[in-house]
Amino acid sequence: MSSDPGYETLDPTDWDSMRALAHRMVDDAITYLETVRDRPVWQPVPAEVAARFSAPAPQEPAGADQVYQEFLENVFPYPMGNIHPRFWAWYMGNGTVHVANLVEEQVVNWMKAMVGFPAEASGLLVSGGSMANVLGITVARNARAGFDVRERGLQGAPAPLVVYASTEVHSCNQKAVELLGLGSHGLRKVPVKEDYLSALEAAIAADRAAGRRPICVIASAGTVNTGAVDDLDALADLCQREGLWFHVDGAIGAVAVLAGNVKPQLRGIERADSVALDLHKWLHVPFEAGCVLVRNAETHRRTFALTVEYLEHESRGLAGGHLWFSDYGLQLSRHFRALKVWMSIKEHGLARFGRMIARNVEQARYFAGLVEREPNLELTAPVGLDIVCFRFNPGGMKDEALNPLNKEILTRLQEAGIAAPSYTTLRGQYCLRMAISNHRSRLEDFDLLAREVVRIGRELMDGAGRGGR
Amino acid sequence: MSSDPGYETLDPTDWDSMRALAHRMVDDAITYLETVRDRPVWQPVPAEVAARFSAPAPQEPAGADQVYQEFLENVFPYPMGNIHPRFWAWYMGNGTVHVANLVEEQVVNWMKAMVGFPAEASGLLVSGGSMANVLGITVARNARAGFDVRERGLQGAPAPLVVYASTEVHSCNQKAVELLGLGSHGLRKVPVKEDYLSALEAAIAADRAAGRRPICVIASAGTVNTGAVDDLDALADLCQREGLWFHVDGAIGAVAVLAGNVKPQLRGIERADSVALDLHKWLHVPFEAGCVLVRNAETHRRTFALTVEYLEHESRGLAGGHLWFSDYGLQLSRHFRALKVWMSIKEHGLARFGRMIARNVEQARYFAGLVEREPNLELTAPVGLDIVCFRFNPGGMKDEALNPLNKEILTRLQEAGIAAPSYTTLRGQYCLRMAISNHRSRLEDFDLLAREVVRIGRELMDGAGRGGR
Repeated sequence: MSSDPGYETLDPTDWDSMRALAHRMVDDAITYLETVRDRPVWQPVPAEVAARFSAPAPQEPAGADQVYQEFLENVFPYPMGNIHPRFWAWYMGNGTVHVANLVEEQVVNWMKAMVGFPAEASGLLVSGGSMANVLGITVARNARAGFDVRERGLQGAPAPLVVYASTEVHSCNQKAVELLGLGSHGLRKVPVKEDYLSALEAAIAADRAAGRRPICVIASAGTVNTGAVDDLDALADLCQREGLWFHVDGAIGAVAVLAGNVKPQLRGIERADSVALDLHKWLHVPFEAGCVLVRNAETHRRTFALTVEYLEHESRGLAGGHLWFSDYGLQLSRHFRALKVWMSIKEHGLARFGRMIARNVEQARYFAGLVEREPNLELTAPVGLDIVCFRFNPGGMKDEALNPLNKEILTRLQEAGIAAPSYTTLRGQYCLRMAISNHRSRLEDFDLLAREVVRIGRELMDGAGRGGR
Repeated sequence: MSSDPGYETLDPTDWDSMRALAHRMVDDAITYLETVRDRPVWQPVPAEVAARFSAPAPQEPAGADQVYQEFLENVFPYPMGNIHPRFWAWYMGNGTVHVANLVEEQVVNWMKAMVGFPAEASGLLVSGGSMANVLGITVARNARAGFDVRERGLQGAPAPLVVYASTEVHSCNQKAVELLGLGSHGLRKVPVKEDYLSALEAAIAADRAAGRRPICVIASAGTVNTGAVDDLDALADLCQREGLWFHVDGAIGAVAVLAGNVKPQLRGIERADSVALDLHKWLHVPFEAGCVLVRNAETHRRTFALTVEYLEHESRGLAGGHLWFSDYGLQLSRHFRALKVWMSIKEHGLARFGRMIARNVEQARYFAGLVEREPNLELTAPVGLDIVCFRFNPGGMKDEALNPLNKEILTRLQEAGIAAPSYTTLRGQYCLRMAISNHRSRLEDFDLLAREVVRIGRELMDGAGRGGR
């Protein structure tokens, strides 16, 4: 790989210098630990350092060395202090305050700008898309219930609350609705067909007529099965008309606003009341990194802030600072997950991420073309974003025979270590599913996969024909 | 620090060899990334490797080098494959399956054994205590509501559900109850006094008489303000008698069962229906690492499992394996947080953690003794576990004057980088709060703090006396 630096990925173009940097980082970290007792437990962030965290997200790469230098100057000297021998404050400290909160605030600002949210919106980095959806839907529930849900609970609801989504919505949203006490009966799944919007409107009207209270529509920006994107603009109109909270589950697709060949499909995302994003998917940040954005910061804060004495905010010292992220979600102690996002975006620049995403979308189309031209293969769904669903189908076989055959093909592909698609079942057809969010893939990787699926499929059929297992 | 290897901490006794190991790890990691294309995407875990993850938690240290060797042999070769150029399965993979799940299963088994839970109990590593409490209380709600909460939601509750705790319960439990749609009205906080148990029983009886349905008692094993531990055995009896779910918030204190001088106080924790633990507090695992344990695994699973097609479990290949941790919580993609717990416990052995915890408890008593002997200082609460609450009080001053004075002392201690206690207010008295969960602290650190608090306090008083600011 290192011999082809011309193929742009997120990998280093010069492995030796990345290796040298990694060794420097390790040396710095070990020395830091070894000498922790010699330093002050804590020190305030000077205003001029704090001011360095307001820049917009860089479009162009700065390179890892320079980003590490920035880290050494602006982040490393201002820890919480929780590893110091004389740190006896909260249990092992709390990642949400001190310079870490400036980094997180900047990252959240970058995410807001990316999806077109206003500067006064709020946000929080979380473990991933599931948690981002839980938080977004919690804010929706509390904002639109029409009574004080935090105080009275749903047990005091004058009318059952109802949330809407398409049948293709990711299952984590159903888990969220169940968690929140709305019940799966409180999630109306409307079939995705040509008439989705009018069916949705009819369902809302029927619920109102039956005395229930519609509160929220969850849109999918990239469904998990096929990568389809709801018509966000039309759903924003509908929610505006109906007075509903508009939540976008953008775990798969929201970051694709960075890619020119996807952005038009996502029009309307900037009108959402809340958006869930995953940064450990198409932005390739190491696990775990998700993000929830909420247009109205005060509504967001009112859902989660609960300030007791031992969490009271101060103007100075360890507990100083205006922004306590614990007011915007469920966690208190938090990993400094903003750092990896911050460093990665600075290292590569958003434009490179956009190119990687756009290339994945092109690769999906390329692979779909291979499938269409190969008589033994067939597409089982339209290509959505970077997702291709297909199966081995040499003709003359029924689904009952094709399904186990394709299942066996997939298992063999994985067990032989050739490639790792996953699978799904669409209209009773078991198929291989490619989610091409991989910055290292090249066209020849897709050629190889198409070839190998046909080879394994034919081998299995020959074996079966000869009475083999 | 390195010059005194005789003082046992979790730090390396030989910094040079730890540094060498860290450099080896970095080299291995970089080489691994550089050559990712040359390896199979995925390979199954051989049965003999899988069998290596069933040993109980070691009591004695194995040392970092040996643990890394085990990692290289048993963990490193069996990744999910999501960094490979031909990985196109779920979006960037899923930390919950493959060898990672064996590591997590083993870590959860160690935690179960640690608190005295039966082998057939279930558990999950989560971000921290807040999330562990959310999950435990969700299971409690769904198990004891008396109807299908997942399906019908609380909107269909025949009677309002009520959860009980003491007034000292950590605020995250209130956030959990609010999240779950029970409302803060659904959390009955009973004042902690001598008669706590009978007051709790009276509250339960009164709710029953009023047509409400008591479902759960949350006990605190280590309160955040003072480190107090509820009488767990008595609460277990009460829950058994009343048919309530017994949840223990052990975020602060549960791991102290490892310390001989704390264990007797925690008697009864083994009788809980669910326990929330934090491993990034007193086990010193880097953020984030919490754990929820549930006595009845099936009840746990029934609360969270939602298996849709794209998450269907298989017997072979990438989606193989019997244990899907996503069935036991809210996340799908998960960081491999079990690894750091696994390595840390193997490196140090549980007995060393027990010694570190026991020493913190001794240090709390030592510091409390300093405070009691120093005329300018006073304890503001009994010492609980490792928590000491105290304040500067030279005598002859009212709380209205002492409170801002102590606040200023704390800020100066922190801003000067001398030490980092936190603070709380008890019966209107602002006080400094020490949570001594620090394996690096020595007795002289406490001497220094006592001295400095008196020095700063006197200086501030002299300044005030001279009309200074």
